[in-house]
Amino acid sequence: MKVVTFGELMLRLAPNGYYRFFQNDQMQATFGGGEANVAVSLAGFGLDSTYVTKLPTHAIGQAAVDSLRAFGVDTSKVIRGGDRVGIYFLEKGYSQRASVCIYDRAHSAIAQANPEDFDWNRIFDGADWFHFAGITPALGGALLEICLDACKAAKEKGVKISFDPNYRAKLWSLEHASEAMRKLLPYVDLLIVNEQQAQELFGVSIPASERNDATDETTDEGYRVLCETFRTRYAIPKIALTERRTFSAEENRICGKLYDGTTLYTSKQYRVHIIDRVGGGDAFDAGLIYALLIGKEPQQAIEFAVAASALKHSVEGDYNRVSVNEVEKLAGGDDSSRVQR
Amino acid sequence: MKVVTFGELMLRLAPNGYYRFFQNDQMQATFGGGEANVAVSLAGFGLDSTYVTKLPTHAIGQAAVDSLRAFGVDTSKVIRGGDRVGIYFLEKGYSQRASVCIYDRAHSAIAQANPEDFDWNRIFDGADWFHFAGITPALGGALLEICLDACKAAKEKGVKISFDPNYRAKLWSLEHASEAMRKLLPYVDLLIVNEQQAQELFGVSIPASERNDATDETTDEGYRVLCETFRTRYAIPKIALTERRTFSAEENRICGKLYDGTTLYTSKQYRVHIIDRVGGGDAFDAGLIYALLIGKEPQQAIEFAVAASALKHSVEGDYNRVSVNEVEKLAGGDDSSRVQR
Amino acid sequence: MKVVTFGELMLRLAPNGYYRFFQNDQMQATFGGGEANVAVSLAGFGLDSTYVTKLPTHAIGQAAVDSLRAFGVDTSKVIRGGDRVGIYFLEKGYSQRASVCIYDRAHSAIAQANPEDFDWNRIFDGADWFHFAGITPALGGALLEICLDACKAAKEKGVKISFDPNYRAKLWSLEHASEAMRKLLPYVDLLIVNEQQAQELFGVSIPASERNDATDETTDEGYRVLCETFRTRYAIPKIALTERRTFSAEENRICGKLYDGTTLYTSKQYRVHIIDRVGGGDAFDAGLIYALLIGKEPQQAIEFAVAASALKHSVEGDYNRVSVNEVEKLAGGDDSSRVQR
Amino acid sequence: MKVVTFGELMLRLAPNGYYRFFQNDQMQATFGGGEANVAVSLAGFGLDSTYVTKLPTHAIGQAAVDSLRAFGVDTSKVIRGGDRVGIYFLEKGYSQRASVCIYDRAHSAIAQANPEDFDWNRIFDGADWFHFAGITPALGGALLEICLDACKAAKEKGVKISFDPNYRAKLWSLEHASEAMRKLLPYVDLLIVNEQQAQELFGVSIPASERNDATDETTDEGYRVLCETFRTRYAIPKIALTERRTFSAEENRICGKLYDGTTLYTSKQYRVHIIDRVGGGDAFDAGLIYALLIGKEPQQAIEFAVAASALKHSVEGDYNRVSVNEVEKLAGGDDSSRVQR
Amino acid sequence: MKVVTFGELMLRLAPNGYYRFFQNDQMQATFGGGEANVAVSLAGFGLDSTYVTKLPTHAIGQAAVDSLRAFGVDTSKVIRGGDRVGIYFLEKGYSQRASVCIYDRAHSAIAQANPEDFDWNRIFDGADWFHFAGITPALGGALLEICLDACKAAKEKGVKISFDPNYRAKLWSLEHASEAMRKLLPYVDLLIVNEQQAQELFGVSIPASERNDATDETTDEGYRVLCETFRTRYAIPKIALTERRTFSAEENRICGKLYDGTTLYTSKQYRVHIIDRVGGGDAFDAGLIYALLIGKEPQQAIEFAVAASALKHSVEGDYNRVSVNEVEKLAGGDDSSRVQR
Amino acid sequence: MKVVTFGELMLRLAPNGYYRFFQNDQMQATFGGGEANVAVSLAGFGLDSTYVTKLPTHAIGQAAVDSLRAFGVDTSKVIRGGDRVGIYFLEKGYSQRASVCIYDRAHSAIAQANPEDFDWNRIFDGADWFHFAGITPALGGALLEICLDACKAAKEKGVKISFDPNYRAKLWSLEHASEAMRKLLPYVDLLIVNEQQAQELFGVSIPASERNDATDETTDEGYRVLCETFRTRYAIPKIALTERRTFSAEENRICGKLYDGTTLYTSKQYRVHIIDRVGGGDAFDAGLIYALLIGKEPQQAIEFAVAASALKHSVEGDYNRVSVNEVEKLAGGDDSSRVQR
Repeated sequence: MKVVTFGELMLRLAPNGYYRFFQNDQMQATFGGGEANVAVSLAGFGLDSTYVTKLPTHAIGQAAVDSLRAFGVDTSKVIRGGDRVGIYFLEKGYSQRASVCIYDRAHSAIAQANPEDFDWNRIFDGADWFHFAGITPALGGALLEICLDACKAAKEKGVKISFDPNYRAKLWSLEHASEAMRKLLPYVDLLIVNEQQAQELFGVSIPASERNDATDETTDEGYRVLCETFRTRYAIPKIALTERRTFSAEENRICGKLYDGTTLYTSKQYRVHIIDRVGGGDAFDAGLIYALLIGKEPQQAIEFAVAASALKHSVEGDYNRVSVNEVEKLAGGDDSSRVQR
Repeated sequence: MKVVTFGELMLRLAPNGYYRFFQNDQMQATFGGGEANVAVSLAGFGLDSTYVTKLPTHAIGQAAVDSLRAFGVDTSKVIRGGDRVGIYFLEKGYSQRASVCIYDRAHSAIAQANPEDFDWNRIFDGADWFHFAGITPALGGALLEICLDACKAAKEKGVKISFDPNYRAKLWSLEHASEAMRKLLPYVDLLIVNEQQAQELFGVSIPASERNDATDETTDEGYRVLCETFRTRYAIPKIALTERRTFSAEENRICGKLYDGTTLYTSKQYRVHIIDRVGGGDAFDAGLIYALLIGKEPQQAIEFAVAASALKHSVEGDYNRVSVNEVEKLAGGDDSSRVQR
Repeated sequence: MKVVTFGELMLRLAPNGYYRFFQNDQMQATFGGGEANVAVSLAGFGLDSTYVTKLPTHAIGQAAVDSLRAFGVDTSKVIRGGDRVGIYFLEKGYSQRASVCIYDRAHSAIAQANPEDFDWNRIFDGADWFHFAGITPALGGALLEICLDACKAAKEKGVKISFDPNYRAKLWSLEHASEAMRKLLPYVDLLIVNEQQAQELFGVSIPASERNDATDETTDEGYRVLCETFRTRYAIPKIALTERRTFSAEENRICGKLYDGTTLYTSKQYRVHIIDRVGGGDAFDAGLIYALLIGKEPQQAIEFAVAASALKHSVEGDYNRVSVNEVEKLAGGDDSSRVQR
Repeated sequence: MKVVTFGELMLRLAPNGYYRFFQNDQMQATFGGGEANVAVSLAGFGLDSTYVTKLPTHAIGQAAVDSLRAFGVDTSKVIRGGDRVGIYFLEKGYSQRASVCIYDRAHSAIAQANPEDFDWNRIFDGADWFHFAGITPALGGALLEICLDACKAAKEKGVKISFDPNYRAKLWSLEHASEAMRKLLPYVDLLIVNEQQAQELFGVSIPASERNDATDETTDEGYRVLCETFRTRYAIPKIALTERRTFSAEENRICGKLYDGTTLYTSKQYRVHIIDRVGGGDAFDAGLIYALLIGKEPQQAIEFAVAASALKHSVEGDYNRVSVNEVEKLAGGDDSSRVQR
Repeated sequence: MKVVTFGELMLRLAPNGYYRFFQNDQMQATFGGGEANVAVSLAGFGLDSTYVTKLPTHAIGQAAVDSLRAFGVDTSKVIRGGDRVGIYFLEKGYSQRASVCIYDRAHSAIAQANPEDFDWNRIFDGADWFHFAGITPALGGALLEICLDACKAAKEKGVKISFDPNYRAKLWSLEHASEAMRKLLPYVDLLIVNEQQAQELFGVSIPASERNDATDETTDEGYRVLCETFRTRYAIPKIALTERRTFSAEENRICGKLYDGTTLYTSKQYRVHIIDRVGGGDAFDAGLIYALLIGKEPQQAIEFAVAASALKHSVEGDYNRVSVNEVEKLAGGDDSSRVQR
Repeated sequence: MKVVTFGELMLRLAPNGYYRFFQNDQMQATFGGGEANVAVSLAGFGLDSTYVTKLPTHAIGQAAVDSLRAFGVDTSKVIRGGDRVGIYFLEKGYSQRASVCIYDRAHSAIAQANPEDFDWNRIFDGADWFHFAGITPALGGALLEICLDACKAAKEKGVKISFDPNYRAKLWSLEHASEAMRKLLPYVDLLIVNEQQAQELFGVSIPASERNDATDETTDEGYRVLCETFRTRYAIPKIALTERRTFSAEENRICGKLYDGTTLYTSKQYRVHIIDRVGGGDAFDAGLIYALLIGKEPQQAIEFAVAASALKHSVEGDYNRVSVNEVEKLAGGDDSSRVQR
């Protein structure tokens, strides 16, 4: 089964360990980006994974391509051109100190791409699924138009579409994002969202009676109502929800929900100790796409997605380097974490 | 506003990560020392921060100076001469294994300094505050005399004085320390101390009824009585207290109190996961000096100091690399530690 | 007092920190192996520790020898020859992600050793104790025969024998292991085992009434019955038990028990945060051997063994780099983990 | 154009920089092997490059595959199975100290492969060229038979065959090698050899009159006679020769010759300062295969091959990370090595 | 004596050692840029060195500032604002492999600066010298105008001006550069140029009779004529020339000349083995400015400049970390490079 | 055969690669010192090598001991006590930039040792040779007396004595050194010296006619006369000379001479490219002691010594990690430095 993902692949520059920026003269230099992270996960799960973006021809652009090829992602549809690979600087937080993310992604090759750069009909040849996130239209320029082109082409070819708003306040305003995303929603078969984004971007909220602000807890009935509103208002068949509680920079609790139009399925909760927080949501997206594509039942699908996400938090870098076996083992209830020898 | 700090700046040699000494052939080589840590914090908070010490002219001495200059500390008052930069070897503890600190600081340039090396009248020109700790007179030689010279000069010029006993058993005996510090106390405007040092060095203790040894907890009333005793006995206007509970080498709980002569203000407690324990107290000192100097109310001042200290525990090295904004955000109650992007 | 240990010393290749295999191009390359880890611990505790194995003459074999010599282990009885140093690849787990261990130890010099390679009478000259583990006969070839040779020679010379089954499913089947170990048990003076191995290898189990599967807790009476069964059935004078609960890859709880033929002594429990899980059991073995050899009382002996094991979890690499003082301090109740300065 | 290469891909473990083995606890862990190095070069030159070998399914085997995929090598024909990835330990020499290479490659997956593992007809589908080296039959087991199978299948499908004896004294004797290679020579279209191997393996030598042992120099006429003998005796259409003078471990002089059946073409000489000596010959092989496949004239072809080899000496690791442009620039005479900015 | 320099300070990202780009996941992350390199050298020589540029307020911009402060450069005139710190990626060449430089400096804070950002009258307060290079006007936007503003203000205040064309083909065309620089030349008191730039940018060339292209050598008479032409044509009082021969990426020969309006002074030649080629010219500029400012005679001045440049080639990073003593020792003829102990 | 060496073992702190001091926050932390380097070489050559010094009991002192034990040096005669391990900071030079050595060795345990610390009669039990260098009496305190004690004890027990003046201007004056060494010379059986030290310390010089200052060359006849003078004046039976020419910090030429009382034997010259210059002389001393002890003829002995020294220059750190086989291979004329595979 073939999945196409589209977005920006960035150079990620991070101090080693828990150093603050430039505390010494070394940086960990890897690549990552929301949809690329999904593409790598899917290739690792054994699917035919094609990633689409635009990258310069120089050595930095080539290294970005190579970083995907190593995982078996098909990069033959990557457009080459432009001047810059977008960059993000990441400083990992710890305890009470929050992570810091500085974007230097303006003027990147993909941010300056044109609609003509992408022949979506050819790209979706043989594809079963198309995934992208709200970061991509947020890049500005022609990106919203390009995303719409892609959605239309996908719809015509019967390719399922999943979308994760992934709102980034450093890229665009809520108003701008909301307006853009509402143009995209009609094409979406699977929306992956959280409570805050549902409220802020789409005005879909949980009834106050189902929300306890003091304990920061929401009832499943609350989530069900939220999903139903989405289904009613935007005719989206499937909605997935992620729930995260942040105890400290390195300790979170995560959970997932999947609504199939009638029922809300809730996963186990995981208390995760964090090696790398970035890509936790992308790992969830990839896990869910994989699980639905291979035909898992809703409960198993949401368990797989959350287990994939939980494992990502223990993996350094943007990419989720875990196998289907590892995810199944955790989703199946074996979280003993004993040494296998 | 200008603050002068005085003490020893050492070369700090530490195995990387949680290696024991010489487990491999690399060491993290940085600089640090109680008062220098305070000076760096204050410069980072935007104050005019002048550090006074004595360091050799060779490359190691110069590197020590450079380490301060990078943060904007004024090093023009550093005396150059002598042979050695003092060294301390630090091995970080973890879980049940305690940190190990080996001093190799005898015969350092500052330990062999003379009273004539320092022209305190010139040094305090334009200064508002003078801070030093008990480690400095503990170095022996003429250091106690030099500290007294500094205190007298400060007093004459109306410069406020803060003092942190920072007792180090590896440097001098309790008797010796107690005697020396009692000579210094009359000059002190702000004393920063903890329960154990108050008892052992100055014989000021908490009434047994306010202390529960089983739970290792002390009531605020107990702390208030302790402060009052100091005020009565030594005429010190302001007293700050730090309280630390050690659950393991990498998990502590910290809290701070400030007594303004009438009322005891207690900060929030923080359960800190530790990247680097050293300098946690110095960060508190700097936070408090900053907060009082810019005129914060006592409750806000103690919250700022403890938040600065909490953040330090997540920063590698002696120096506290955090900004006023970061401290304010935590002190203000936002400890979500979410990625900002 | 002199202790002889016998087993395989391997090259251990591990990604740095919490990287997955080959996430970058560096590996931590050290040496380790169950009995060698015991030998290093014992030398560190000040005993005369002799390690016996077979290693190639080339630079990799020599480096293995040197790794022991640095700790003062007597390597003059190491046989040199063969082609390979066995290798194990270790990827450390974190949070929900389990550690991964890949063995590449077949065809190693020791696995291909002959009974004639070892002159046990000469090796045990002046020895007080002989320790080996079930990993060694698991290597196949002539190793079971060699272990039996060693046991017989030890018995003849009045050398005490301790044995830790250390069952490794990747090396041999339960049936094979059980059969081999039952041949070795008659020689054993101290058996170190856990509940699962007692059951699976020797059919010795805890009465259901003393075991609560829901809470994963066993009563001391249950452990006592288990030990008594061993004593009755196999005439083993002393039995030590280790109990481990795994909360996550980096957080475990450990405890130890010692049965001296009449009474079961139970140690304190330690909740350990883990730097390196490997060698935790070997550190326990070494701690117990040391404590019994120098004549500690049973309760003190088991406290020493478990404290040594607890500390090992905070030490990187296979070898337990801790001193008697450090173990005594923890076993004696001081687990404050404060910086000593 | 599509090239198939076949051989062993090993894990390469090397101390960093110029450290001797185990001088510290880190090793550079990468992958490499004669024919794999050729495959990577060819993919980097833009050809369709397929690599064939057998590798285990575990994480080490997968990392070996990934190391090739990153360069765009087609690994879909790699057979998965067996237990071990072969290993070689490499210690780089410097000045008078020679490099040390320790093989630990016995019992590897490929060394234990069966002829049935490889369906050469399918593998050579659409292929233009097949390359392998003498290291592969040297691995023993069924490898000579497998190589012969491959040669026969290639010949039947009209695929050109190049062969580099690459004699390794640590793998087999001269007699054994000579006998095996003589079975392979009849299939070879391009033989890449040096003077010493021509003499020792095939008894083809340079007339004494064309060889000056004192100066270690051979005339071009001497090389021409050597090639002619090969052509006459073994009916090999094209012969390439490499000539290396070793001044020190890090300074060599290299040159190449190509004989097209009538004329001997000699390249420029390069005095190379060496970052990594390993793979220098493989880079030459790849350069020559590329140049001949795309139809370069003999003189240009040999210049390209030697320039590719010269550049490899400046690249860390087995793989030659250089582009066609970089090789052309050097082969074309621009060796100014100025910074391009 | 006070020198002001003006230009762009960039983040420099370079693989460690001689790795090619992204050969592993680490990069050396430091700061540098032509004029900033001059400023650091001058501060290291003990002059009052003020650097002017524009940098963002975020952590990357702050780290750039801190990198200068560590050396004692006065950064109080750095304007804070804009979004990006310019970046250059550097891959060091070796032997026949050339260094690669990839610029990612468009849209940087300084490239988008406005003339009003800089109050040159205030900046030049107390200044004796102003230095900038051709890279700065090459950044486009208002930079040429800003440079002209600076030159006029300097001239008015009697501040001497030195200029190094430092032509970068990746930033602008020869035509564009030539036109811009001719506007700047009238203000220049000291022009630092090489033969190629003199010819290409200003049409000033060496008579053919004084140039031997085969040996790549030019006579001193040739250089003298070139300087005289500059003096005649552009009324520049002093001209310095640098001569570099590139034998390989890591071995060059350098020499310098100084023309004081009447005589050409030629320095010793140095054959330099290179640790880091970047900044070699900036070190020359700084050495010459220092030597002329403190009043050295022309011969001593040019010797100092070239010795400073020679030493820079042995120092990692853009900044030249050498002292006046070290330069004097080499310039004075002691190049024994023996260990001092 | 057993050799005893005596001196100071220091902690050596060096920036990695060719960084200047504190250019980043890492230092290579190893151990070394003239006589300890000799002891390690001798153990590596297979002799029974005992090293005598005084070291503190703390972890730094223990690590120093362990560094010797790893090589098989007998450390049972090391006295434990005192406070400090001496330190030397080393910055490697390159090209025209000289290496920098900063001593921080005053007040070390050995420098404060007492004559009663060492029971030379017991230490020399079974010994054949005693070696020490002029650095040891240079440490001051009782060291000259201790060295004299050792010499007397050695003489009484028939232990041969070798001495290398190893003059260090940073430790004592020429006058002081000369006076001390003249007291030691009467005990010396083998003096290892160079031309400059012979002249400056002992007033023994080469006739002007045999010395060409312009070419920096001395005739063998000149060296012979120098040796004869020593023999005549100080009755030293054997004299070895080392000759070093320094072309740059990383390229030297070395040669050795041995005078047996009648004839001067001259070794081959080696042009060495340097990884680490420190310990080159110690490697020579060890090579010569080994060669003479096992009874090599004078010509073979001096060849062995110089080859050992040449190889040391390619080995990182103070210790010479080479085997007898490697030295013999080079001394025997095979300096091809080809990869062995």
